[in-house]
Amino acid sequence: MLGLNYSFMMAEAIGSKGITGRKLESFRVKALEAIEEIKRKRHPGLAFMELPWQDVSPVREAAQKLRDLDNFLLLGIGGSALGPKCILEALSPFHNLREGKGPKVFVYENVDPATLKYILSSLDLKKTGINVISKSGGTSETAASFMILYEMLEKAVGREAANRFVLTTDPEKGDLRKLAATGMSALSIPPGVGGRYSVLSPVGLLMAEVIGADSEELLAGAKEAHEKCLDCNFWENPAIVAATLYYVMQRDEGRAIDVLIPYADRLKSFSEWFCQLWSESLGKQGRGFTPYPSVGTTDQHSQVQLWMEGPEDKVITFLRVEDYEADFTIPDVFGQYEGMSFLRGQSLAGLIKAEEEATELALAKAGRPNMAITIPKVDAYYLGMLFYFFEVVTVLAGHFLGVNPFDQPSVEEGKRLTFGLMGKKGFEDKKREVVQARDKKSQFKI
Amino acid sequence: MLGLNYSFMMAEAIGSKGITGRKLESFRVKALEAIEEIKRKRHPGLAFMELPWQDVSPVREAAQKLRDLDNFLLLGIGGSALGPKCILEALSPFHNLREGKGPKVFVYENVDPATLKYILSSLDLKKTGINVISKSGGTSETAASFMILYEMLEKAVGREAANRFVLTTDPEKGDLRKLAATGMSALSIPPGVGGRYSVLSPVGLLMAEVIGADSEELLAGAKEAHEKCLDCNFWENPAIVAATLYYVMQRDEGRAIDVLIPYADRLKSFSEWFCQLWSESLGKQGRGFTPYPSVGTTDQHSQVQLWMEGPEDKVITFLRVEDYEADFTIPDVFGQYEGMSFLRGQSLAGLIKAEEEATELALAKAGRPNMAITIPKVDAYYLGMLFYFFEVVTVLAGHFLGVNPFDQPSVEEGKRLTFGLMGKKGFEDKKREVVQARDKKSQFKI
Repeated sequence: MLGLNYSFMMAEAIGSKGITGRKLESFRVKALEAIEEIKRKRHPGLAFMELPWQDVSPVREAAQKLRDLDNFLLLGIGGSALGPKCILEALSPFHNLREGKGPKVFVYENVDPATLKYILSSLDLKKTGINVISKSGGTSETAASFMILYEMLEKAVGREAANRFVLTTDPEKGDLRKLAATGMSALSIPPGVGGRYSVLSPVGLLMAEVIGADSEELLAGAKEAHEKCLDCNFWENPAIVAATLYYVMQRDEGRAIDVLIPYADRLKSFSEWFCQLWSESLGKQGRGFTPYPSVGTTDQHSQVQLWMEGPEDKVITFLRVEDYEADFTIPDVFGQYEGMSFLRGQSLAGLIKAEEEATELALAKAGRPNMAITIPKVDAYYLGMLFYFFEVVTVLAGHFLGVNPFDQPSVEEGKRLTFGLMGKKGFEDKKREVVQARDKKSQFKI
Repeated sequence: MLGLNYSFMMAEAIGSKGITGRKLESFRVKALEAIEEIKRKRHPGLAFMELPWQDVSPVREAAQKLRDLDNFLLLGIGGSALGPKCILEALSPFHNLREGKGPKVFVYENVDPATLKYILSSLDLKKTGINVISKSGGTSETAASFMILYEMLEKAVGREAANRFVLTTDPEKGDLRKLAATGMSALSIPPGVGGRYSVLSPVGLLMAEVIGADSEELLAGAKEAHEKCLDCNFWENPAIVAATLYYVMQRDEGRAIDVLIPYADRLKSFSEWFCQLWSESLGKQGRGFTPYPSVGTTDQHSQVQLWMEGPEDKVITFLRVEDYEADFTIPDVFGQYEGMSFLRGQSLAGLIKAEEEATELALAKAGRPNMAITIPKVDAYYLGMLFYFFEVVTVLAGHFLGVNPFDQPSVEEGKRLTFGLMGKKGFEDKKREVVQARDKKSQFKI
């Protein structure tokens, strides 16, 4: 299991800016109630907890076909892109520059026409398979790019086009499912599994299999996390301790910004995946936290000044990797220069770990609470574990905050206004609203 | 010049959550004082304001040599990497997948050994030029990778190795400058120009020239920004209005998180560049803001729920692009499906712009202040303008906050502790501190 060291969150180690063990203990009953509540699985959103036990054969079958092509293009946005992208970047970094790793992979997760132009100029559409991901089957951005690509592919390969698509969507509802009924290949996202909890469904697993990672390993890691995160011993359950700490730090100390800083480039996307999960699940009714994406050591050089000496509104979570599975010894060159001589004979892995440890301590000395999660290495097993761990932490934090971690009611208005502008029937009043707002907006501008 | 529409920051348009024109007006004197103060250029950190008028011929000469090679590898971290990376991604997106765009480019901005392994497996070192960037010449991370690469290159090409490096550093001081004196090629970062204000120095300009962008254009855009941002007419100066708004929103409304969301994938790195500038310049003495990196429309699907309904602690700044210089019409396919039929005949550029406009309004309707910066297109000229604009806004915000926007005193302790762990002479007590802290940290862990 992953390790959690939260000493530097505690008053016992960092003094008055920390939380006392006694206070933490006082949350035990509430926390265990939350665990029991989760175990009863009454909320449909908890369906994500079944994912580790799914049958991956449909995914493997779909991947098999896609792996024979030169390129794999994913169309999706939000939870339909962040998870697969994270799997790609964590498990096959620099994928498109390395040979023999399966198809080149492109993720089009926006409606930026310039990006689509560059993607199309980087791949041969004739040799491309496309995965369209939308839980509802009706995400406008994804629908738009799907329509464009479908027509292009049809021009390029004729009837064969339909065979080049895999639609990942609801098993019963929505436009993509209807299309699947006409013969297009499809994978199912189980009912109840929302976009931001879908990474361990076919949404993420297909990407894993296409790049040659083992989806069973992702699930195996998640299974271990499941066992540990639903354990009813408060002090031995890292998910419940972490969720409690985040909650108390916000409620009692006003620390509402949660930075997640993995010390590994390939986990930068993991931090971004976490940001959607944490913000969209918990940011409601005036409550919630602002998660912050980061990567070490790089962001020490851009953010640490603020963390050390800026407003006291943050909790920093380090994500440490024990084995980088690669290392370089710093050679005996430039020994005559003071800034370099001490580095000779050291290793890069030693340096990155030293910086992580030093930053933890520097923050603690300044009374800035932080904790560290450790994984042995970045592989499918531990990535699956991390996904599941943070999903459970999020659900628990939702329980503490008193919000529903599975809905996102406030994204609708922007969609309705967009529909209005795009001329969708039934949204004429929304179009009027936007046009009227333009008048208001002529007031203050330079 | 870039456009600034701040109507949705104002009480006149969004009601009580906005700022009144009268309150803004009351900052006029203080703001103009700040402008006058900047114009006197008494602080050495203001040296960045001279950069638009520099002679770019040394940069062009260095680039000429590098462009003949197959690969260009940049070693730097923080301000020495974020700026060049932003120029690369904004001005030559998907650079390494496109042919005929000059050398393939790699930025190694960390000490993650796995990343270095992947970079080395993606390029032929024999055909690689390397730019080492460190203002002080003594950044440990950069020194470490420089030492490793120097030895490798020496093994690969013998004496020729020294000719493959360009050192970008202080004109007089530091280890890199001393090395330059032994014959290695070097470019100068003018004294006073700190890392996070260095993008328009040879730090960023060399990258521009290597990828075939025109560094003079970057500077020309900055010149226009200089003229407009130092204008003494409060209501016509976008930098002073923006700085005042950020400051007042934080001081009076508790909105201390500033999200910058460009609606263009290629400006995602710009948002990250801004984050260092804003956080490291202003986060001190308990003051400052937390800048937040974002990109639209993608992050609508991950963040908007939190922005709309979470804690009222944010100001959202949209960055709009008028011309994407590419577009796709959504074809007449799948017309039988409701979620798709209304999109037929629309364009991707139309959709991304509609989403941006709709999101502004949705936020405004929920009483969430936001403003929009507009640029005609993403090119070197407007990128230079954006860099300079935000640099001036940062200095002005520092003036309001009463902090020195050019120092970063709190990053030192982490460095000292790292030195201790790495066995640097004179830091033995810091090593002891870290070792003792390990005891403390054995207390609370799972």
